[in-house]
Amino acid sequence: MSQPMLSGIIAYPVTPFTPADGKVDLPTLGIVIDELINSGACAIAALGSAGEGAYLNEQEWQQVATYSVEHVAGRVPVIIGISELTTTNAVLRAQFAEGIGADAIMVAPLSYYKLSEAEIYQHYAAISDAINIPIMLYNNPATSGIDMSPAFMLSMVEGIENVTMIKESTGDIQRMHQIYKLSQGKVPFFNGCNYMALEALNAGAAGWCTAAPCLIGDKPKALFDAVQRGEAEEAQELFSQQLELLEFIVKGGLAATVKAGLEMRGINAGLARKPLLEIPEASLLKLKQILQRVNA
Amino acid sequence: MSQPMLSGIIAYPVTPFTPADGKVDLPTLGIVIDELINSGACAIAALGSAGEGAYLNEQEWQQVATYSVEHVAGRVPVIIGISELTTTNAVLRAQFAEGIGADAIMVAPLSYYKLSEAEIYQHYAAISDAINIPIMLYNNPATSGIDMSPAFMLSMVEGIENVTMIKESTGDIQRMHQIYKLSQGKVPFFNGCNYMALEALNAGAAGWCTAAPCLIGDKPKALFDAVQRGEAEEAQELFSQQLELLEFIVKGGLAATVKAGLEMRGINAGLARKPLLEIPEASLLKLKQILQRVNA
Amino acid sequence: MSQPMLSGIIAYPVTPFTPADGKVDLPTLGIVIDELINSGACAIAALGSAGEGAYLNEQEWQQVATYSVEHVAGRVPVIIGISELTTTNAVLRAQFAEGIGADAIMVAPLSYYKLSEAEIYQHYAAISDAINIPIMLYNNPATSGIDMSPAFMLSMVEGIENVTMIKESTGDIQRMHQIYKLSQGKVPFFNGCNYMALEALNAGAAGWCTAAPCLIGDKPKALFDAVQRGEAEEAQELFSQQLELLEFIVKGGLAATVKAGLEMRGINAGLARKPLLEIPEASLLKLKQILQRVNA
Amino acid sequence: MSQPMLSGIIAYPVTPFTPADGKVDLPTLGIVIDELINSGACAIAALGSAGEGAYLNEQEWQQVATYSVEHVAGRVPVIIGISELTTTNAVLRAQFAEGIGADAIMVAPLSYYKLSEAEIYQHYAAISDAINIPIMLYNNPATSGIDMSPAFMLSMVEGIENVTMIKESTGDIQRMHQIYKLSQGKVPFFNGCNYMALEALNAGAAGWCTAAPCLIGDKPKALFDAVQRGEAEEAQELFSQQLELLEFIVKGGLAATVKAGLEMRGINAGLARKPLLEIPEASLLKLKQILQRVNA
Repeated sequence: MSQPMLSGIIAYPVTPFTPADGKVDLPTLGIVIDELINSGACAIAALGSAGEGAYLNEQEWQQVATYSVEHVAGRVPVIIGISELTTTNAVLRAQFAEGIGADAIMVAPLSYYKLSEAEIYQHYAAISDAINIPIMLYNNPATSGIDMSPAFMLSMVEGIENVTMIKESTGDIQRMHQIYKLSQGKVPFFNGCNYMALEALNAGAAGWCTAAPCLIGDKPKALFDAVQRGEAEEAQELFSQQLELLEFIVKGGLAATVKAGLEMRGINAGLARKPLLEIPEASLLKLKQILQRVNA
Repeated sequence: MSQPMLSGIIAYPVTPFTPADGKVDLPTLGIVIDELINSGACAIAALGSAGEGAYLNEQEWQQVATYSVEHVAGRVPVIIGISELTTTNAVLRAQFAEGIGADAIMVAPLSYYKLSEAEIYQHYAAISDAINIPIMLYNNPATSGIDMSPAFMLSMVEGIENVTMIKESTGDIQRMHQIYKLSQGKVPFFNGCNYMALEALNAGAAGWCTAAPCLIGDKPKALFDAVQRGEAEEAQELFSQQLELLEFIVKGGLAATVKAGLEMRGINAGLARKPLLEIPEASLLKLKQILQRVNA
Repeated sequence: MSQPMLSGIIAYPVTPFTPADGKVDLPTLGIVIDELINSGACAIAALGSAGEGAYLNEQEWQQVATYSVEHVAGRVPVIIGISELTTTNAVLRAQFAEGIGADAIMVAPLSYYKLSEAEIYQHYAAISDAINIPIMLYNNPATSGIDMSPAFMLSMVEGIENVTMIKESTGDIQRMHQIYKLSQGKVPFFNGCNYMALEALNAGAAGWCTAAPCLIGDKPKALFDAVQRGEAEEAQELFSQQLELLEFIVKGGLAATVKAGLEMRGINAGLARKPLLEIPEASLLKLKQILQRVNA
Repeated sequence: MSQPMLSGIIAYPVTPFTPADGKVDLPTLGIVIDELINSGACAIAALGSAGEGAYLNEQEWQQVATYSVEHVAGRVPVIIGISELTTTNAVLRAQFAEGIGADAIMVAPLSYYKLSEAEIYQHYAAISDAINIPIMLYNNPATSGIDMSPAFMLSMVEGIENVTMIKESTGDIQRMHQIYKLSQGKVPFFNGCNYMALEALNAGAAGWCTAAPCLIGDKPKALFDAVQRGEAEEAQELFSQQLELLEFIVKGGLAATVKAGLEMRGINAGLARKPLLEIPEASLLKLKQILQRVNA
């Protein structure tokens, strides 16, 4: 199994819906993807949290996955996000992703019941057994309801063939130090907590998974590059500049906020799906001001 | 709109699967439902947490809902549980439940994204607008990822036509005192936290939602009756007798543990769906001992 | 060692200070103590949380302890509260309490550093070795910063000679069920969480430790008696009547709120010590209304 | 009021006790202080968490404060730590510290009761009114039981004359970004969370408050200098080297662990005071190994 060595910004498109009937709007998705590739992303991750993957039905999910791979057309690797409650469904989606030519999948366990480590391990093992592309472990208790420790995730990287990368989104910087230390720096891990990007990159993260390039273009890439070059002061400066936006899109609800910001930039990606509501008038105003400051 | 005035034990069947192929096993579901009615339940609630409702696909969910209503056949009211991520899907299932003759639905919001109160309110309002049967608000942050305060839930009972009842499962007894006080005792609320049953009934709960009768028959009903008759000492005694079992089925994973216990009682309801695993050997032994003690 | 079998309301006086110079006001303390005995208390507990014990200097603490024992003069047992950071100081105060004739002491460990169970155990063992009167273990993480589990506390009751009783103030009713079950009902435990009094008494608590009788006289005793007689409905009614006040004095800051309420009842106990501030005007008004409702 | 512009490592000595009788051992304190100054500390902070300040009686506290100022003798500024429950006692100690020539005081509010922001504000204001030396706000909920937000602390820096610096010990890196942003980089803040030192310095902290130099000499200073010079890789390397020790002294109990480590380095500072116990045999072994690795 060959494996893409990802390093840099993994960019997350939203899933646009047509304003008229709320159906998936593939042409606009193509526009968003092009913007993200132009912003310097090292990979495109479709159907993540920003992409409302959990809110799409089976057919829509397949459409978005297929279109994403076709539209990227090898310019960069494509990662497909999978968040399913049952192992059976997760396996089916993983196989679908491999079948359409995705380069990797990103898998979060999803809790309805509290799962034991044995249950989570078997979930990933069953997915790995069914495919031949790399799996990125995705730890994000805020959305998935399940928290996996660094040691447990590394045991899966060690023991499950296709599990090769970690995306850590708890916002606890110590987790990254632990992953680095426990794996002696050998397991690539990615930051999934926007407002902790600077610390994560300083702590050795191989990259940063983010929807922010939808709104601030190449600025996340510039931060990544500054850290790579060892320009600490420049990195701190770039981070300070982006921090307000990074905090805002997380607190305001990622999908709805990024869609609102895209519209301010002239890309109408429609509304997020209900129960998600449009962000309030006051937040729209705030977002406009923040975008003006950051993109000035 | 007429409304069932529920009072007593609302019993939750598991959803049996055939050992051979893991498909829904309706005949065994019928046996479980009959047992629950015989245990003195005032209503049957299908497709709740015990029923792995979230783990069924669309067609299976419809089968179980339909069979439950038909098999109960008016002996007691039937409540159908709905836990959907999108408002659209929740509305469709609510309409289906009404269509097959369910007496009420029980709805928990389900989070992937953190939802605001405005978003949750609109979610319930949209469901209510689409049907003409009562809705039981179901607050269970441990499974749904969303915590609704007593005041917020009462505002929905007040403002949304078909929302008439509350099921509170946080395990915080103060919530029940608050519901009672804020509604001046007028809004029926049900206990959904097994090991807090005694306190909840003493605090004025109209009933207790539980899968325990699958394993200990009419004992929950006996506890309910003792509290109703004001027999405090008898109630305390009955509760002490059941408490170990009530804690065990919650901690061990509700669906898997109740299915294991059913098999000990001669009803083979199959395994819970993966990622859920069978409960470990040591837990099986413990469960057997507890059941012997309680059912002695 | 003989031991008082406490059962009922253990009443907590505030420590009055003179308005003029903030010094300890013993005559007013005598008035408060008399009120509490008249309200039906089975014991007086001086220098607890309500008594600002932690805010007194050595000499003041000795004055209040001595005066309390002398003024009660055997009408009911007297318990002296001890909350010291170092074991040495806790031992000295325990010996002082025994020396002046206190019937028991109530001891909470106090954290500056996080303490291990071994450290807490030795703390209590050292105190026990130095005296010959019973020790009530006092678990109240909200004030002491240390949380002791039921199993750990029972291991101290088992292993340390003079440790014979438990006061549980976490507000988690399951702790009481656990103490009851693990000790087979043989270790007396007391409720220290005002707004959980009804559940605690129903769960088998031997009594209720509270400053509420300072403001609502014999009403806590009436609730205790109703539960003892098995009058569930009457108990629920009495509890509902008191609940608002019980919540208010906890949330508003116990010492300051009780002192404000005492003044409304004509007993000027002065202000709580700084950094504690007088409760705000709006809270005073609210308290007055609540007292009128409860004492109507 | 002139004010020392602190920048670098603020080093925290333990308070040695004589093995024979547990009394304060001033000559050994002198040795520890000399070591810390030699390790490149920009200031000495006596009577902090490492110094068991909360466990000393009045007279001992005065001895240690006085000796520290005299022994440092102007080589670097001396900061005296104050953690008192009552405002009156905090004021008295602040005045004492000023009287003996301390350059600044570090003040944490200490909770027995939960304090409101108004109460905390007034506590600091009363201290400030009584002295003419700078006050470092010290936020450490783990020991003090009180958590102050960045915005609230900055409001005190703004509104209370002598409050000029912040020590943040929650371990939440976002707090530092907030302090930096809200104060536009103008309020000096110090890191008090050992294992977050690298992130804190990268985030603009003016320095690092730590007892680690007691055990690893000038290594914290080397890390500080590397960050100052913008040598990101070197800083990361130095931090990785120290991290295990930094985590260990925090988790193992700061005072007891640092004293155990000092003895391994040939300085007998006695035991921490009870209820603190000596660290277990296995931890001693672990500490020895860590020290060998770090100081290799």
